[in-house]
Parts: sequence; structure tokens; C-alpha cells
Amino acid sequence: MEKPQPELEQEKDPEAEAAARPLLTDLYQITMALAYWRAGRAREPAEFELFFRRCPFGSSFTLAAGLRDCMRFLRAFRLRPADVKYLASVLPPDTDPAFFEHLQGLDCSAVTIRAQPEGTLAFAHVPLLCVSGPLLLVQLLETPLLCLINYASLVATNAARLRLIAGPKKRLLEMGLRRAQGPDGGLTASTYSYLGGFDSSSNVLAGQLRGVPVAGTLAHSFVTSFSGYAQSQVLMLAPASGQGPPKDLSILTESWLGKVCEYLGLRAEETHLGERAAFVAYALAFPQAFQGLLDSYSVMRSGLPNFLAVALALAELGYRAAGVRLDSGDLLQQAQEIRSIFRKCASHFQVPWLEAVSIAVSNNIDERVLDQLAHKDSEVDLIGIGTNVVTCPLQPSLGCVYKLVSVRGQPCRKLTEDSEKQTLPGSKAAYRLYNGEGAPILDLLQLEEEPPPQAGQELRVWPLDVSGGDCRGQTLTPVSLEPLLRVYFHQGQMCEPIPSLAESRALAQKSLSCLSSAQKRLENPEPYQVALSEKLHALLGSVARSSQEGP
Amino acid sequence: MEKPQPELEQEKDPEAEAAARPLLTDLYQITMALAYWRAGRAREPAEFELFFRRCPFGSSFTLAAGLRDCMRFLRAFRLRPADVKYLASVLPPDTDPAFFEHLQGLDCSAVTIRAQPEGTLAFAHVPLLCVSGPLLLVQLLETPLLCLINYASLVATNAARLRLIAGPKKRLLEMGLRRAQGPDGGLTASTYSYLGGFDSSSNVLAGQLRGVPVAGTLAHSFVTSFSGYAQSQVLMLAPASGQGPPKDLSILTESWLGKVCEYLGLRAEETHLGERAAFVAYALAFPQAFQGLLDSYSVMRSGLPNFLAVALALAELGYRAAGVRLDSGDLLQQAQEIRSIFRKCASHFQVPWLEAVSIAVSNNIDERVLDQLAHKDSEVDLIGIGTNVVTCPLQPSLGCVYKLVSVRGQPCRKLTEDSEKQTLPGSKAAYRLYNGEGAPILDLLQLEEEPPPQAGQELRVWPLDVSGGDCRGQTLTPVSLEPLLRVYFHQGQMCEPIPSLAESRALAQKSLSCLSSAQKRLENPEPYQVALSEKLHALLGSVARSSQEGP
Repeated sequence: MEKPQPELEQEKDPEAEAAARPLLTDLYQITMALAYWRAGRAREPAEFELFFRRCPFGSSFTLAAGLRDCMRFLRAFRLRPADVKYLASVLPPDTDPAFFEHLQGLDCSAVTIRAQPEGTLAFAHVPLLCVSGPLLLVQLLETPLLCLINYASLVATNAARLRLIAGPKKRLLEMGLRRAQGPDGGLTASTYSYLGGFDSSSNVLAGQLRGVPVAGTLAHSFVTSFSGYAQSQVLMLAPASGQGPPKDLSILTESWLGKVCEYLGLRAEETHLGERAAFVAYALAFPQAFQGLLDSYSVMRSGLPNFLAVALALAELGYRAAGVRLDSGDLLQQAQEIRSIFRKCASHFQVPWLEAVSIAVSNNIDERVLDQLAHKDSEVDLIGIGTNVVTCPLQPSLGCVYKLVSVRGQPCRKLTEDSEKQTLPGSKAAYRLYNGEGAPILDLLQLEEEPPPQAGQELRVWPLDVSGGDCRGQTLTPVSLEPLLRVYFHQGQMCEPIPSLAESRALAQKSLSCLSSAQKRLENPEPYQVALSEKLHALLGSVARSSQEGP
Repeated sequence: MEKPQPELEQEKDPEAEAAARPLLTDLYQITMALAYWRAGRAREPAEFELFFRRCPFGSSFTLAAGLRDCMRFLRAFRLRPADVKYLASVLPPDTDPAFFEHLQGLDCSAVTIRAQPEGTLAFAHVPLLCVSGPLLLVQLLETPLLCLINYASLVATNAARLRLIAGPKKRLLEMGLRRAQGPDGGLTASTYSYLGGFDSSSNVLAGQLRGVPVAGTLAHSFVTSFSGYAQSQVLMLAPASGQGPPKDLSILTESWLGKVCEYLGLRAEETHLGERAAFVAYALAFPQAFQGLLDSYSVMRSGLPNFLAVALALAELGYRAAGVRLDSGDLLQQAQEIRSIFRKCASHFQVPWLEAVSIAVSNNIDERVLDQLAHKDSEVDLIGIGTNVVTCPLQPSLGCVYKLVSVRGQPCRKLTEDSEKQTLPGSKAAYRLYNGEGAPILDLLQLEEEPPPQAGQELRVWPLDVSGGDCRGQTLTPVSLEPLLRVYFHQGQMCEPIPSLAESRALAQKSLSCLSSAQKRLENPEPYQVALSEKLHALLGSVARSSQEGP
């Protein structure tokens, strides 16, 4: 069962509106706010950039994600009186009440956001978000924006890796809600693993609020809750055609069980009656979409013959079974055996659709296991991944940062002795330059005031080295290019709609297809280059020198 | 700055009331619900157990946590019409409308929860939660309850490990909000890392909603946003005593800078004026709680002398500086150097409190680095940990499961061929047995109907082996014992208040102190034993046999 859903109710639901509350922030944002305000600097125009320093999981790329949640957060941003009262309780008792009035009046009507669209491939040091507005306010936004972008981009990238491994045909189901960091972690994971390339999620709320296609089967508890047919009050099922009287599905099933066991050389006494009764109950509820979970007792001696008996009983009434699921053991090997038995039975019992019944697998599947399950000879159709997509165990955080790049139009820079933590000063523009084959050559960072690069025109650029420093200049001539940062939010107004989740998902797959296979490789990929314009490179030098020389 | 807070507003805030929405569940819960309902089994009395199979991180223990969120979830559990409408859109179009009426009428008034109190040490296979009620409903609760318990217990346990490493004196600040799985992941992390033994969190919302003490300093952006004093509109500060005229703190600071640099043999020209102006601005906002972030430019040549200049200027006005923070480089080594300079200056400038100014450190601190920072000669006072507490990188999910143990009073069991995934049948009671020294000997699982074990009376028990199987019986005589599962929620009513977060935090520390040091060891600890009663052990054998023999 897998149903695409329109983005239902998203706008109607007040809980869905605010992605995070304003106080979901670090206390130091509040203490700094007070200090900015005391210094009379609250309204100074400032710009921050949100970026990461290294792509996660050793990949050459990151998928930009989380922007839709940032927009919901910014539009609803407003401190309630209770919030301000709470802040007063943690600040010094003699804090000027006018500061709290200032906080109470804050909203995002003076904030502008430029961002890379969701689903864009993003690279180190190229801003995902440029946030400009009054210094005090855009400082306050740091933590919630990081919180909304960091994990969304991480899990989308993780999902994209899993999709690359699985190839385009295997269906991938995200089912990690129970292992996520609480309710919202689960919702975020489901939303952005779909954006990254999964087909569906088990998370019903993600279906309701975000339009993610939802899918599901049944659990062992359902199977083990049955001990026999006597527990079911209903056993009659009408034929699919609507023609003819209803029949007792348990009687049909018992009769088919004998035939199945005889044909496969199994002992009917070894099959579990409770399991079969559970399958019959599920089939009665979903005659058009019957699925069996095969491993509550013994897959080959009980689950499989029971499934076949019910499937053939359904076939007799004109229905088609939908699938089976395995949740333990050697999944690949069992899928081969099951497919081979499906084929034999399809032919022997003359039920052709039986050979193509979907085989779904789950059980702590990681990249390595997925690689086996995605092998060209694999008979697995659908792969459910929970923990290993949701928790991103290879690297459970992306490490985006939010750094001040200008105040009052003057470039700022952090010049710590840890060179990797140094930042690039100034308000920037970013372009992706392409070669004649439509493949991206590099991302170019330049100052926002510079004229954009031109297609067909030679440029001198300064590639960033891995440590965030710079190396020697080079020249190149892009055949085409695109600006990476779009103005989504201007002075408090949305000025471009956020594409639907499905559109961003399609963009992600399209962008990935432009990378070379060496760049897409999951281990030791060829790095993607990011470079500075001549002018930005020069500014970097001058800000560094002026600091070394002292003020 | 670190302020303990009462649990403010928790009850008043509607958003804080429902910990999760009913649709935050896996779709298969809904499909199973329909199948149970169709079979006429929706209201059959059933019991599920929520437990884990292995303690996380290689620890011998887990801290039970998340119960308070489960209670909030259960009390508010109710499907809204829009929820039911959404479910109708993903179920077959011919689904009986009476099923949706049944869903619409669901609440937890027939649900009973027995649970281990928050902050209890919990061990493998001993239920954290026993959930009984109507089969359809308690099945539906699976995913949200797992979601609320799994991560809460994981992060509390992770925090407890970090507290064991840090020892009782170092202050631990959780600051991982920006690296959490979205807003709620951050809130959950802050709440339960406090429960696990941290002192405070940077997360303001956790302070507001959960009463977690909040703490914070300042960020590099604040420092780099200043280039000089001209940016500040206010520079005057009144003496702490209130006696005497305000003085210009920038003038005092400049004068102290000369003395500091002269005494320490530093060049005043190498100090960064913007950094100093930022410190002055912060000091003007927080004269009683001035803190300096030292590594925006150069710790030893700029951050430290600038901090000292401002601190001594404040001292002249009768204030005491609160602390410094380091966020890069060799934290331990720098803390030693800074402390030694604080001592020299305290003595030279006759400002005794200066030598005890708090040194806070952060920068991707993990267990290994924390172990160094907690060394007895370490001069570090406060340690901020973000990613490594929040994301639990050593094991990012706990793997709690939720298994059906009885229906209509009959024990159920999953008997998969994967022996580790087999479950223990029947509704159970659990006791912790203690020896004469008050140390726990083992946790005993028995059937709920059995009489409780008695102190001083010999018992025959069957220890579980690591794989979840059982081994040979043994006898023992507990000197004292306590029941582990308490009825918190009975037929829809809270029947015991959930202790405050601070009380649960204290319980966790007390429980940990009862473990032997071999059991508390973080690597290769001595395992803690869990055993079955004679009767439960016998039931296990009989359920296994009856299944092998077939129905």
C-alpha cells in the first residue's frame, strides 16, 4: 500500500504553521541581544551566512533542504508576552524594561532571505542561506535556522546516498519514526528523506502535513495476537467481481493450504494456525491489498505456505495479493527462494500475477546491506529503512554554521587561529558554472556588488582548498551558468513560492544526474570545486592583513 | 550565567500539552487497526511491553526516561475530524464508515500504564512501560510511545556517561540544539540530558517549558560585529555600590589594557580593538556577569589581554567578571595557561577573585576529550557539549521495541527463527533485588499473577543470557527488594504524579551510585543480571513447545 497524497491541510493547520517557536534558541542569543540593544546597535543592518565546511558522510555533495520550514518559522516569528516574561526571569533583574518592549515588537518584516532552492546540490562554504536584517533580530534567528536546516539537509543527503546505492528501480520506504529524536525529528526525517529520493514513509503525520506518500504493512504483534479463526467475528468475503455469494475465506484458505503444502513438500502441521488466521483477518480487511509478514514463526515452514494459501484463496475470489515482508534472517537469500517458489506456484496453480508479488524487506538495513539488496539479481522490490536513514549514523550532524559577514555594509570576518574556522567576509553572490556538456565545473563565490559572470567570457577564479584557505588562481570560460541564491523572502514577504516537496525531490534527482560518476561515488569521491572571484579573494587578503596589523 | 528555573508555564501552554499528535504513527498501525476492527477484536483486552534488548554505547545500564512526555501524549490523545478524514484518504475507498466512527471516539480512558520511574536504571528485557487496554488502541500507541521513550532514554544515558566521565564537580552545559533533529529533537535532548546529569542547557525553550536551568555566553559574531567603541552609543557605567558618578568603561579599559600588556609582556597594538569594544559592550549589559569569548582573533595576544583589561576596569567599579570561554585549539593546555595568568594578575593587581574566574570550553567535545578535560589537574570549570550529547554518535538509537505479551489474558509470544528477536510471554511484574550492602543483585521478571518475592526468603531464578535466551537456574536470598513497575496511569487517569525533572535527575544520580564501579565502567563493564522467575521460565518453555508442536 503506497499512496501519493496532495499536500493536504498544510495551510489550515495552525500547528503546522510555526515550524519552531522563537524561544527555541540558545540563551546566548538573548544575552547578546541585550548587549546589542544596550549599545544602541539593535537595528544596524547586518548579514549572516549559513553554510557548512564539509559535505557529510565523505560525499562530494550535500542536498540543500529545510528552507520550507525556515519560511514557516520566519512568517510566524513573534514573541508572545509569556515568552518575554520568561526571558525577563533569566536576565538580570535590573534589565531595562524598554529592552523587553523591543523584543515584544520584533517580527521578520525587515528580514530578507536569499537561499539555494531545496533539492539543489550544495557545496562547502557556499551559503545555503543569506539572512539580512536588523543585527539583534538576525542574530536571534541563528539557532532556530540552524536547527531547521542542519538536520533536514543531513537526512536528505543521507537519503540521496541510499537512493544512489539502491538505483532508480527499487522502492525505498522510510520507517524510522520510532528511532528519531522525538516527534519532530521523525516528521523532519520523513519529509526530507522523501525529498532526498525515498519513495514513501510509514509516518502518517508526514503524509497528512507534508503530502509524503505513506506506506505500511503489518507488524508481528498483529500476527501473534491471533491463535485461530475463532477470534474473528467475520470470515465471509464477497468475490471481487461483486457476482456470486460471499465465501468463508478461512475454509478456502484451509483447502488451499493442503494443496500448497503437498505441492511444496511441506507439512501442514508445521504451519502456525494463528499466523494463518491473522493473514485471513488482514485479507478480509484488505482484499485488494493483502500483505503477509512472513517471519513471526518460521518463514519457510509456516509464513510462506500460509501466505500462499491465503493468496490463492483470494485469487479464487478474483483478488490479487500485494506483497510479503521479511524482517529477519538473510534477506537477499530468502527473497531469492521466495521468488522462486512464487514462480513455481504461479505456474503450477495458474495464477500468473503470483510470480510478481512484491517482496519487501527490513531489519536494520545500512548502506552495505542495501548494496547487496540492490544487486541486479536481487528479487527484493521494496526496502524499508529506519534507523540508518533517520539517525544518519555515519555522521549524525552536518555542522552548518551561521556567521556574520557584514554590518552596515562593512565586511566582517572571524580570524581565529584555527584556520578551518575562519570565515569569508562580505555579502556574496554565488553562481554555478557549467561546461559545454551541461556538467557543473565549479561554484563561484563573489561579492554581491560585483557584476555577474557572463557565459562565454573568460574569468579568473581562486579555488578554495579543502581547509578553507585558498590556493593559486586559474582561468576558465563557462559555457553557461546559473545564480545559486534566490530571494525567497524580502522585507518580511515571501516573494517566490517554495516548490512542492515532490518538485524539490525531482530537482534533487536531476541535479545529481549532472554530477560525474567520480563525483557521485560514495567513498573517496572526486571533490567538487568552489572558487572565489578575484575581488573576493583580494578582500580576503586585505581583511586578514588589516587584522594582523592591528586596528 | 546559569539560572535554575521552576517548571514555568508547563501546564498553561497548549503546545506543551500534547507531546505528539495521534497521527504521528506508522501507517501499518492504521491498517492493522482496520483489520482488528473488521475481525471484531478492537476492544479485546491486550497488553504490550516496551523494552530494549541491549543497553546502549556498550554501557551496563540505561536510564529510563520519556515517561513525562508519554503521559502528556496519552492524556491529550484524541483524533480530530481532520485526522480521521486524512486516514480515510489513505485507506481503501470502500472502508466501512463505522470504522472511522470508532477511531473518532478513541481516547485513553481504558488504558493503563505501568512504568519504571524516570531516572531509574533500566536493564535489557525489563519493560520500561507496560501498556494495557483495548487491542486496537494499544496497538495504535506503539509508534508514538516508542518515539517518546527511545530517544529520551538514549540521550539521558549518554548524558549520564558524560557525567560519570566528568565527575561530580565539572559543570556540564548541553548546547546541541542546532545539531538536533529539528525543534523537538532539540527540546527533548535538552530536557533529558539534564535528567541524565547535565547542569544546564543553552536551549531557552527547555528552560521555559521544562524548567531546565539555562546558561549561555556570547558568540563570535557578537565579537566580530564590533570594530571599535564608536559603534556603541552607551559607554558609561555606574559603580556597583551605586555610590559615585558613572565612568566611561572604554576609557578605564584602555588604561587597564596598557598595564596588563606591560605586566604580561604583550604588545597592546596586537590586541584587537573591535574585540575589546565587544567585551566592553557585553560588560555594560552584564556588569555583574561579564564573560569573554577569547578566540575570535588570537587568544593569548588579543582575547586574554582584552578580557583582563575589561575585567580590571569592572573591578575598579566594584564588579566581578564571571568567566571566559574557549572554542578552538588545545582547550586543556590553554586553560592551564589562562589560569596561571589569572593567578599572576590576581596577585599583581590585587584582585583576588580574578584567579577563580570560570573557564568554559567547547568545540566538538566527545568522551575522549572530556576525559582529558576532567583530569584532576584540569583548570576547566564548565564544559559545553553539543553534537556529542545530542546526536549520541556512539549509537544514535536505542532500539526499544513494543511487543504484544498477552491478549484476553492469554500469553503471546513471537517465536521467530532469529532467537534474539524472540519475546517473553505474559503480563509481568519486575523487582530489583538487593544484597546486604544495598547494592542491586539483579532484576527479577515474573508473571504478574505470582506473589511478589519476599526479603530474606530464598528464591530460585533463571538468569537471561545475553542473547535473550536462558541458562541454568540459581538460588539467592535478597536482603531487600523494590518493585520496578508503578501504575502511573490507570483507566485513563494519572494516579501518581510524575516527579519533577530535577527529582528524576537526583534519582538517576542516586541509582548510579549504587552500581559497582565495574558495572559503571564505560568500556567492557561487568554486565548487570536480569533473571526470570521459575514460573515465567516454565511458561517460556511451554509456549515454545506448544508452538513447535503446531497448533
